[in-house]
Amino acid sequence: MRDFLPGQVRHREHVRAALEAVYRGYGYEPIETPALEVLERLTSGEGGANEGLIFRVLRRDLRDLSEVADLRALTDLGLRYDLTVPLTRYYATNSAALPDPFRSLQIGPVWRAERPQKGRYRQFLQCDIDLLGEASLGAEVELLSATCDALRATGLSGFTVRVNDRRVLEALVAGSGFPADLTRQVLVVLDKLDKVGPAGVADQLAPLGHPLAAARLLDILSAEADVATLAGSLGGALDDDVAAGLDAIMAAVTDQHLEGVDVAFDATLVRGMGYYTGPIFEVTHAGSSGSIAGGGRYDRLVAKSGGADVPACGVSIGFERLCDLLPPDEQPPGRRVVVLHDAGVALGPLLRASRDLRADGYTVTRAVRTGRPGKQLPRLAAQGHDLLWDYDPAEPTPALRPLTAQD
Amino acid sequence: MRDFLPGQVRHREHVRAALEAVYRGYGYEPIETPALEVLERLTSGEGGANEGLIFRVLRRDLRDLSEVADLRALTDLGLRYDLTVPLTRYYATNSAALPDPFRSLQIGPVWRAERPQKGRYRQFLQCDIDLLGEASLGAEVELLSATCDALRATGLSGFTVRVNDRRVLEALVAGSGFPADLTRQVLVVLDKLDKVGPAGVADQLAPLGHPLAAARLLDILSAEADVATLAGSLGGALDDDVAAGLDAIMAAVTDQHLEGVDVAFDATLVRGMGYYTGPIFEVTHAGSSGSIAGGGRYDRLVAKSGGADVPACGVSIGFERLCDLLPPDEQPPGRRVVVLHDAGVALGPLLRASRDLRADGYTVTRAVRTGRPGKQLPRLAAQGHDLLWDYDPAEPTPALRPLTAQD
Repeated sequence: MRDFLPGQVRHREHVRAALEAVYRGYGYEPIETPALEVLERLTSGEGGANEGLIFRVLRRDLRDLSEVADLRALTDLGLRYDLTVPLTRYYATNSAALPDPFRSLQIGPVWRAERPQKGRYRQFLQCDIDLLGEASLGAEVELLSATCDALRATGLSGFTVRVNDRRVLEALVAGSGFPADLTRQVLVVLDKLDKVGPAGVADQLAPLGHPLAAARLLDILSAEADVATLAGSLGGALDDDVAAGLDAIMAAVTDQHLEGVDVAFDATLVRGMGYYTGPIFEVTHAGSSGSIAGGGRYDRLVAKSGGADVPACGVSIGFERLCDLLPPDEQPPGRRVVVLHDAGVALGPLLRASRDLRADGYTVTRAVRTGRPGKQLPRLAAQGHDLLWDYDPAEPTPALRPLTAQD
Repeated sequence: MRDFLPGQVRHREHVRAALEAVYRGYGYEPIETPALEVLERLTSGEGGANEGLIFRVLRRDLRDLSEVADLRALTDLGLRYDLTVPLTRYYATNSAALPDPFRSLQIGPVWRAERPQKGRYRQFLQCDIDLLGEASLGAEVELLSATCDALRATGLSGFTVRVNDRRVLEALVAGSGFPADLTRQVLVVLDKLDKVGPAGVADQLAPLGHPLAAARLLDILSAEADVATLAGSLGGALDDDVAAGLDAIMAAVTDQHLEGVDVAFDATLVRGMGYYTGPIFEVTHAGSSGSIAGGGRYDRLVAKSGGADVPACGVSIGFERLCDLLPPDEQPPGRRVVVLHDAGVALGPLLRASRDLRADGYTVTRAVRTGRPGKQLPRLAAQGHDLLWDYDPAEPTPALRPLTAQD
């Protein structure tokens, strides 16, 4: 977990504002959910590996250890590990007050008790958009278009939108000869392909299904085929509509000719969460080892969370990784006034005049004279003040002069 | 803990932006600290009653209940209950990278495990400014001026800044005849005056000190005196400088003639936290039962947190209470376009044209035609869309027409 210095916060706010403006322009509406959720909801099995990384909160009613039978009974709340689980609960609770379909924009911190490592934080910000209530692939196309626009608005360029479909993965596993009940286990292994390589995947697949299945799976994947070719090599295991849908999604994004954006089918894309039911996507960039955004369709999750059976699809931007890719902001130039005054002077007139300057767009800070201007003025200039008002109580009208490091 | 609907989030963001713009205009710089802090730091005794309301986080390394001796050993982290304790740790850690004096602006959620009741939430937002490194009362005057400006910028009017000083309270307790070592206990009782009334305070003070002390304390307080008169009736127990300082702070704020702002000395103002060392303040409004802002000088807290011995002073706005006082925003008028299209249409050209509209400042949302315009159009109008583009793939140039509830 990190502290952020003022310059870092300004950078983050700039990036956040750029994302938010684009998403709002698409009609996504900001919502807010609490950081803590009931543990039962966070540990439903849909969160994949993240469920093992929950910060769990001690019950407030315990007076003595003897009151509980085991560790599980100690805790009742947890810090959310993503924004999707809270959104589905939110929608189940509040859908009567929300438009249909509902476009949700949620920007907020999430927590995962990971071992500290480069580029991974235990508290980090996610920026999610979700479209609930649209079953057609217009939802996927819109989410990807909006996300490309949002990322480009931050100044990012040269990124790739990778697209796949859970049903392609299921056909791939089945078409390679694995039994259907091992699908999830095979996909967990396949998800490690970029970390352990084909040989590593083959090793880990060996205990699952027929020895030839792993070889066949890797053989199909190594072909780097487009969707249609892959469908052909799976010999009917893949529904034609799924392949056509994926092609339509990619075509609609490509057809917008977004500069600096590539769109690619990636049959090896898995995504960790258990809840996806259709198209899945990730955004990658050469400057970042992990993905900077990811998402997909999760049509059954809202109903599982106690809400209506509503189709749903979303994209989440990993805010920290995005910020790490972007150059820091320059301090905006000019108009930062420091008012130098003696200790003990009556501050009313000074503050009134400063207020007028602020109304004109200046940032105005006070500083008490130290009596050593040769030291104090360069220090104030180094702190970013570029105008000086050397305050004289006899003349409380602002008189600004430039302040530089040479003062 | 609460979910916020889109209209509520827009309202909150509007209020937050108003506060932030004013504080930044005074030179306060945004910082961010993590939600979780080491429990030891949160339970140092400076947090008063809030330390009993901490959400405690279970250690991640426990495998079995038998590994721990008692409840305390189960947890190592806690959710922060205010922004001041994290700030002092932040300053102790990062002061080398920060200007001196440092003006900190921190807006973020805090958590308290309170029993749910009207106007009290278990997660709520605080908006704090703090000035670290200025010992003179210019700090207090600036913090109060900035806070008055910030509150007025949200549209709030008719509020009162109540001012007191911990040293006035100490003199009051001593001057009434209580032994010095009971000061803190007497102040805890006095802090309940607005809840239990003078008779209630007298009852609770009875076991502390001489029976006449309580009567004398309440007698002095009932006089509603100004600082100088109070100092006189305390017969030398109050330092002249303290009384003069309080007068100077109030005069400097009053002297700015801020419309809708009253400034008043309030000898009964205590503030719960243990860490205050000098002037303390609260902002109250007839529409809110609790205070909407509070703060004071806490000159020894940074050193206690492991940092340099730096003078410090701050104000915290209770964001939820402030929002509850302000009327909700009207939805901004106009320029919300809905593009109605058939399912299955090629979306590329539609999205390209929508992007151009967004660049012109429109919010542009898609909707799939249901085939029942008599139902769909009024519903879209009710959702806030006021312009319709009835999309025709043969003519992908936007053609907007007004959309109303009569459609």
